[in-house]
Amino acid sequence: MAVNAQRFLDDLHKLREFGASGVGNGVSRPAYSDADIAARRWLAGRFAEACLEPHFDPVGNLFGLAPGKSLLMGSHSDSQPEGGWLDGALGVVAALELARSGDRPISVVSFQDEEGRFGVTTGSAIWSGKLPLEHADDLIDHGGMRFSAARGRMRDLAQGFVDPNRFTGFLEMHIEQGPVLDTNKEKIGVVTDIVGIRDMVIEFSGQQNHAGTTPMHLRRDAFQALSAFNSLINDRFKNVVSPQTVWTIGHVDVHPSASSIVPGQVRFSMQWRDGDVDRLARMESIIRASAEEIGRAIGVEFRFGQMLGIEPVEMDPELRQSLEDGAQTVAPGTWRVMPSGALHDASNVAALMPVAMVFVPSINGISHDFAEDTSEADLVIGLQVLEAALASH
Amino acid sequence: MAVNAQRFLDDLHKLREFGASGVGNGVSRPAYSDADIAARRWLAGRFAEACLEPHFDPVGNLFGLAPGKSLLMGSHSDSQPEGGWLDGALGVVAALELARSGDRPISVVSFQDEEGRFGVTTGSAIWSGKLPLEHADDLIDHGGMRFSAARGRMRDLAQGFVDPNRFTGFLEMHIEQGPVLDTNKEKIGVVTDIVGIRDMVIEFSGQQNHAGTTPMHLRRDAFQALSAFNSLINDRFKNVVSPQTVWTIGHVDVHPSASSIVPGQVRFSMQWRDGDVDRLARMESIIRASAEEIGRAIGVEFRFGQMLGIEPVEMDPELRQSLEDGAQTVAPGTWRVMPSGALHDASNVAALMPVAMVFVPSINGISHDFAEDTSEADLVIGLQVLEAALASH
Repeated sequence: MAVNAQRFLDDLHKLREFGASGVGNGVSRPAYSDADIAARRWLAGRFAEACLEPHFDPVGNLFGLAPGKSLLMGSHSDSQPEGGWLDGALGVVAALELARSGDRPISVVSFQDEEGRFGVTTGSAIWSGKLPLEHADDLIDHGGMRFSAARGRMRDLAQGFVDPNRFTGFLEMHIEQGPVLDTNKEKIGVVTDIVGIRDMVIEFSGQQNHAGTTPMHLRRDAFQALSAFNSLINDRFKNVVSPQTVWTIGHVDVHPSASSIVPGQVRFSMQWRDGDVDRLARMESIIRASAEEIGRAIGVEFRFGQMLGIEPVEMDPELRQSLEDGAQTVAPGTWRVMPSGALHDASNVAALMPVAMVFVPSINGISHDFAEDTSEADLVIGLQVLEAALASH
Repeated sequence: MAVNAQRFLDDLHKLREFGASGVGNGVSRPAYSDADIAARRWLAGRFAEACLEPHFDPVGNLFGLAPGKSLLMGSHSDSQPEGGWLDGALGVVAALELARSGDRPISVVSFQDEEGRFGVTTGSAIWSGKLPLEHADDLIDHGGMRFSAARGRMRDLAQGFVDPNRFTGFLEMHIEQGPVLDTNKEKIGVVTDIVGIRDMVIEFSGQQNHAGTTPMHLRRDAFQALSAFNSLINDRFKNVVSPQTVWTIGHVDVHPSASSIVPGQVRFSMQWRDGDVDRLARMESIIRASAEEIGRAIGVEFRFGQMLGIEPVEMDPELRQSLEDGAQTVAPGTWRVMPSGALHDASNVAALMPVAMVFVPSINGISHDFAEDTSEADLVIGLQVLEAALASH
């Protein structure tokens, strides 16, 4: 029995109605919101219709379990507060379509809070054992709600945690959330690895001063320190990075931030991502040495915050080969292998079983925005690649 | 009759009690606050005791008028919300001491709202005709109060505006509010000019993007544009500036300012000061050309806000010579000529009559802070320089 592309698209549009923003295909369905819980109840019903046993675990991860040993497929159905209709939802509904149309046992999952209302890929992090439930319960969202209270909203649905040993591996389809496939007019990206992330806050403390009466040579301007630091690392990274490496100063807080006052302090985020732990470490050395040099040169003190480290995850070679075979069958010459610069539930699941991922294009690379979209034709190509991959596996 | 240093210091400490912050010599006496009005009432009484006619004008500028033609001396007695005991107060009390101890007719003034609760050097700007009263009345402070309502608090004291033609010139003593004298262990700065200011908001608009999935070569990062712009102007200014020129990027607002998002927009203040209008204009050309070049190179749009322009003001050569003579008499070898990088009431008064200014050191260059201070010995030297200057004039 082949996949039914229309049924797949119909279910995607149906899922979109839970939390539909009224702006294009936009969706607002944050984890544990009424819309999110309603969507999961609806999905559970669809799973049951496909002869999968619906199973909510204690944190709201929703499984549709095939009997016995099975391959697990899926993603997440929660969204950003201002999100798109495909981020997560695509992988869940594609998994459902493959489970109900194929001959081999496939279980489906929609992880909870992938978008990080509370943590980072919270639901799969807890299931994988990376984040102990008792620590998670203390997490607090931007509105001051505790994770324990949020998951309590689904208490009536909850059963125990699912034993991961019933699954032989995990496949996740997702939108790329970046511009690479769209820019190159390609249809499919087979993921090589999910990049590792390093992220820390850096602070330069100089001397707040009057912008009229303080001569340039007596200034210890924290903003100038940031700018000089940024130039220096950009220059030094050139010898270390690959075309896939990214780094970002995204959060910047200048104090006191007034036009007539020489900035006394700046706090900023320094984030860098790459698939190679050695490269991540070399970049860290450059960052630390450069901050120290700039601090000395400009006469500012520097302080590094705690470094958040998420390790790179390589995709399973065998599962990845199946996806490449599927891509070559369905979309010959219009697919590529590529790293995932974004985190996904697969990063966590990799601690439990072999995982692999496949991307479809994001129009203009837009995601985490009501404007996120992918053509229906490209969504169906993604579904067909998964089908072909399962056939070759 | 010579100046009485102890009486001068006693009055300075008395004035400090109005709005004393309880932190060191700190003062909180914003324009039109209860403390400010009480201080002005007290000053009016001291003026009367010195046989000066107290006169409040419609905006709360307080004069102590000598009969007939006279030299005007003074500064302001309002403070920053967190200010020091000397910023403004020093010039007023020194003027009072000279008026009551000398033989020549000296009038005294304490301008209102020099610290800019409503405008910029508001009281003297109105008196000088630069800021029409009807425009000033529409100004609103950070708390939402209109200037018309604030000055209404002093309605019972108000008489008409004082005719500037009764004054032959204006002398203002002030703390330096910068580190130059303190760093060089000098006692007196005779001001050459009050620098001109240019100040505008610049905005770079790029593309907000996911910090993991957007390759470096496809980014249009607004923060990177700011950093590159800053490096470029720092480099190009080298050929244009003098050691007295200053420039500052003080206010920086990065949007959306999150560690995992490539900044889509940055708004920042670009302020530069110098005594030479041509140099100010050359710097403006560099700023505009550099923003354009960076915009093109990084693919961001740029927008310049309206430019605030305050013109440089040269001190009157004759009055300035008297101050230099006085400095050389009282503090030989430990004084210098220097520009004022900060604005002062003298900038406005210069539109009406010849003006000159003299600075005493600020310990560690600190001002607009409870920690602002100058040693009493240095305050007395300043007073004596003024006395000697009047004798030589």
